Amino acid sequence: MNASPHEFDFISHVRQRAASHPRLALGIGDDAALVRFAKSDGCLVTVDMLMEGVDFTIPPATARQIGWKSLAVNLSDLAAMAGKPVACVVSVALPRRGGFELGRGLMEGISECSSRFDVALAGGDTNTWDGPLVISITCLGDPVPPGPVRRSGALAGDWIMATGEFGGSITGKHLNFTPRVAEALALHHTASLHAMIDVSDGLAADLGHILEESRVGAVLDEGRIPISGAAQAAADGRTALEHALGDGEDFELLFTVSPTDGQALLKSPPCEVRLSHIGEITAGVECLLRTRAGHVVPLPATGWKHGFE
Amino acid sequence: MNASPHEFDFISHVRQRAASHPRLALGIGDDAALVRFAKSDGCLVTVDMLMEGVDFTIPPATARQIGWKSLAVNLSDLAAMAGKPVACVVSVALPRRGGFELGRGLMEGISECSSRFDVALAGGDTNTWDGPLVISITCLGDPVPPGPVRRSGALAGDWIMATGEFGGSITGKHLNFTPRVAEALALHHTASLHAMIDVSDGLAADLGHILEESRVGAVLDEGRIPISGAAQAAADGRTALEHALGDGEDFELLFTVSPTDGQALLKSPPCEVRLSHIGEITAGVECLLRTRAGHVVPLPATGWKHGFE
Repeated sequence: MNASPHEFDFISHVRQRAASHPRLALGIGDDAALVRFAKSDGCLVTVDMLMEGVDFTIPPATARQIGWKSLAVNLSDLAAMAGKPVACVVSVALPRRGGFELGRGLMEGISECSSRFDVALAGGDTNTWDGPLVISITCLGDPVPPGPVRRSGALAGDWIMATGEFGGSITGKHLNFTPRVAEALALHHTASLHAMIDVSDGLAADLGHILEESRVGAVLDEGRIPISGAAQAAADGRTALEHALGDGEDFELLFTVSPTDGQALLKSPPCEVRLSHIGEITAGVECLLRTRAGHVVPLPATGWKHGFE
Repeated sequence: MNASPHEFDFISHVRQRAASHPRLALGIGDDAALVRFAKSDGCLVTVDMLMEGVDFTIPPATARQIGWKSLAVNLSDLAAMAGKPVACVVSVALPRRGGFELGRGLMEGISECSSRFDVALAGGDTNTWDGPLVISITCLGDPVPPGPVRRSGALAGDWIMATGEFGGSITGKHLNFTPRVAEALALHHTASLHAMIDVSDGLAADLGHILEESRVGAVLDEGRIPISGAAQAAADGRTALEHALGDGEDFELLFTVSPTDGQALLKSPPCEVRLSHIGEITAGVECLLRTRAGHVVPLPATGWKHGFE
């Protein structure tokens, strides 16, 4: 007898919209879903949580954009492993006030992204509270032969390459980026990817993760780093290069290959997105920058810092 | 040069504590983990999110208890499908102030629960903010032959059975319950389970989910419903029966079997936890209660309401 929309009504709304999918042996309606995988060698799994006031604010972002982003960040993680997305589950804490409409908007964005990338919506957990919106998506994927690409495989002498352009994502791209799923699969099919990561913390910080896991160093070429229009347009006292190196949420792929494979990729790119050769892996432990003037200097330590008080 | 503990320090702390596991082909340290499954027929997946101020408060709950609970509620969901837990990923929004210590406490509880039930900690996403604690765990599991038990398989004439006792969980059990994983597997091995659910919304509400999915009715026997000591001790104007039917978070199994299987389970229980025969499935659509006096009345509509304003 409660006239206001109810969590079960929202679940029912989601269930009606969740399309059946050949990989979903059991979908929404039980305590767990059953997801089929292509091979018996297991599944990739990744999770990302986004929080209102930290990762976005509404407005200017719309609920639909947040829905898209919350799934897309996970697809970007699977792409970084050269995996193929298969299914996802969504848990959400909706503000009690206006939560039903917000939830519907989120679902629109999630559905749009899941349709685009053929991802099954396998289930979820809907909650309401008096706090801000929190959404967490876990995504499952198939590993693709010859297997997942890790952060730890970079070798001295490798070329460092990247898709797309860097910097200034906060002015818009972070809400409507295209996760590089198709590009990752095409690159994985064409070249031997030694190490890969998606750039979420920032180009310099995420290169740092590869270097740390691979126990190598790097030299980046200032003149070769693809800088976005948004980074070039920023007039906030930081240079375009600083934006490109330090801003987060580019969601581009950063990877290393042998020079031979790198040359082949530049000559015959397997994807439409711009590919750039931006530096080399070294046997050292430092991350350096070769300036336009030819000087080699330490790479400025930039990138998003996540912190406690 | 930041002296305060940092998110990466916490991730490093977690990574050091996350034991290797035979089902983890790739664990923490990449953009996704790779989990192996027993068979090629897929994996079960379920997710639950817990929020400070809604699902718990600290104190009286400790961070360790919340860690335990946040994994255990997922294991209870897998148990409800008669699945075997394999791996989990954890996403968390930690309050910036005191978040490192809170995170360590959560990890203790998660590790304790994952060790007890042999669940691999495959990865996670750590975030900080100025809001309350939010933790979401996604758990993956193996389906167990002859396959997952659903909510939709109850048949008219089935016995309705349950593990354990009901009501009053809020006084303590909800923070340290044992998910009925072993019991579910033993029951699944011994009997043909037609339908099953774990009782999180409350006995009446969760029976309602089985009835709705199976398109059947039920009669519960008032005199046979196992009522917990906590429900009997409550002196708040509600009867012990109302507590048993309406309180949430018992995390017991509610299932239906043929009368023959039910009799066999009572005669030779495959698990140590109390098994009760509490009613029958009917061909109707109503959920009824046979009182101690022998009257058949509609079951009071109780159970936790999740709502929007």
